[in-house]
Amino acid sequence: MPVGTQASVKGLTPEEVHATGAQVILANAYHLYLRPGVDTIRELGGLHRFMGWDGPILTDSGGFQVFSLGHLRKLTEEGVMFRSHLDGSKHIYTPEKAMAVQAALGSDIVMPLDVCPPPSVSESKALDDFRLTQRWLQRCVAAYDGAGALFGIAQGAMFSQLRRSAARALGDLPLDGSAIGGLSVGEPKVQTWAMLEESVAELPIDRPRYMMGVGSPEDLVEGVARGVDMFDCALATRLGRHGVLFTSRGRINLRSATLKLADTPVEAGCDCYSCRHFSLAYLHHLVRAKELLAGRLGSIHNLRFLARLMAAMRGAILAGDFGAWSRGFLDGYTAVAESRRLDQRKRYEAAMAATRR
Amino acid sequence: MPVGTQASVKGLTPEEVHATGAQVILANAYHLYLRPGVDTIRELGGLHRFMGWDGPILTDSGGFQVFSLGHLRKLTEEGVMFRSHLDGSKHIYTPEKAMAVQAALGSDIVMPLDVCPPPSVSESKALDDFRLTQRWLQRCVAAYDGAGALFGIAQGAMFSQLRRSAARALGDLPLDGSAIGGLSVGEPKVQTWAMLEESVAELPIDRPRYMMGVGSPEDLVEGVARGVDMFDCALATRLGRHGVLFTSRGRINLRSATLKLADTPVEAGCDCYSCRHFSLAYLHHLVRAKELLAGRLGSIHNLRFLARLMAAMRGAILAGDFGAWSRGFLDGYTAVAESRRLDQRKRYEAAMAATRR
Repeated sequence: MPVGTQASVKGLTPEEVHATGAQVILANAYHLYLRPGVDTIRELGGLHRFMGWDGPILTDSGGFQVFSLGHLRKLTEEGVMFRSHLDGSKHIYTPEKAMAVQAALGSDIVMPLDVCPPPSVSESKALDDFRLTQRWLQRCVAAYDGAGALFGIAQGAMFSQLRRSAARALGDLPLDGSAIGGLSVGEPKVQTWAMLEESVAELPIDRPRYMMGVGSPEDLVEGVARGVDMFDCALATRLGRHGVLFTSRGRINLRSATLKLADTPVEAGCDCYSCRHFSLAYLHHLVRAKELLAGRLGSIHNLRFLARLMAAMRGAILAGDFGAWSRGFLDGYTAVAESRRLDQRKRYEAAMAATRR
Repeated sequence: MPVGTQASVKGLTPEEVHATGAQVILANAYHLYLRPGVDTIRELGGLHRFMGWDGPILTDSGGFQVFSLGHLRKLTEEGVMFRSHLDGSKHIYTPEKAMAVQAALGSDIVMPLDVCPPPSVSESKALDDFRLTQRWLQRCVAAYDGAGALFGIAQGAMFSQLRRSAARALGDLPLDGSAIGGLSVGEPKVQTWAMLEESVAELPIDRPRYMMGVGSPEDLVEGVARGVDMFDCALATRLGRHGVLFTSRGRINLRSATLKLADTPVEAGCDCYSCRHFSLAYLHHLVRAKELLAGRLGSIHNLRFLARLMAAMRGAILAGDFGAWSRGFLDGYTAVAESRRLDQRKRYEAAMAATRR
């Protein structure tokens, strides 16, 4: 799901997002609550009409954003008090309010307000957070009266038992899908995948699973391998805006001087708008010249790359050879990066040897 | 002609530019000569293929840009020596080089290297500049061997006789069109139009007339009224990127708080992509939230506005009622701005009166 935090996938029209093959857009209830305001969007006919997107919209409740505010927010049983990052105004966000905001926006997939602890949290604090999140989730279920699908969020920080309890608890409530939160927030990757496995093991089997805030092509493959169905991440568009593009051979940086005369598309066989119309050399020029079009073309390519990747994984699963497919993909995707790392290491060792001589 | 200085109309794809109704794009030979370099573009199949634009391209020679460099350039009979604004490297640009560069780019409409004096120049200096420009133009005519149309440029600063001589001189050379340069560069508007009239009075009647670096909707109307056929200006896209949009009632600023709930397009009846898909309220939100899409939608609307304006003028000329049409347009376009000025004056006078009491 491409990220359109403020009711716009950065730099792209709804048609362009649709053409990448993306089916759902993620918007952020917290940001839209503060600006332009929920009443404004409701008065203008809801979020779909406001932003011109007629596909499904998933809205994050804003819990993660509020908790990122640090000293600007205060947590109570009732909810969370915070000051706007825009104008310092004081707000209280409760589970009921998170539901009302998302119902007013007209979201198709609604996320509950939850507590998202940092990976460094203590086990006892994480347990408290989990229990509060559970009580909030029950209030969300009771309060939500919109037409969308309500998901639960399984947290649990870096504690296996807590991850399992949180995932299991979702099955006791009448929810439409399961999100796994609090991963890929700075912890080592090996821990990400271990915690994901604990969560997925206990999630209801008959509901879609959504891993929040992930991610990169390799992380999508690792996530799907562990049973995840849905992802959202701003990475594809953020990297795209800065000239870093996904290819089946790993990321490339459009600034690289080696691309000055590259009269080929970013990726042979890619059917995205950028690859069908422009050469790497032109994209290289646009990035170097700081032309706005560079960010658009990069974002379009990266989103299309992820959509094609998801489709390829779906195909491999249906064909029953996801294991071989994913090893093949990851080998190709990381090979260049790996050889670059080895190169750097060789150069470093040569430099050290020269210093010692 | 929308401006695509560095081989890109800022933020827009070639398809989008085409959809605005624009027929010719202006690119800048000086900028492209420095980056990515003429050899690069030639090797990649020429400027049209490089940037994916299959319509005509007019290239400015770069004279105006070189003269804007101030102390970084030195003028001789041979040409102009300058240092790159990018990396300080030393270059010499001659009339012959300007022709070779534009031929290599594959320009359809080619501009000669000229001397563009500032409006404050003395008459004797302006006369020297005119004579040098004439000698350079003859060298351009002799040197150009591309397939494009070569235009002349009539300068003459703010001196009526010089404007007339420069315009008349173009008729003596085998050129395909006439440009009027050095106007709208900071002088009062009344002088712009007086000088334009002097130039046009002496230009060959059977060649298209191109007023360089203009401009705003009202200036296009004033220019056409005086016999101009072509214009280029970055204003439409620059204003569009900053949330200032053209309407038949004058410019509007999308930041204005009055637009927060405006559930109508920028201009009723406008068929541009932005007006067909989005409300003023959404554009207002995008500008306030600093979303990239705002600049695109604004640029598209402004370019379409100018293309529709030119088409309307063509229609009025053919219908034989351009006089009445242009008075009607200018009355509507400036009425709001005028009443706003009067408002401000009233408020100012009231404030002064209050101070005196």
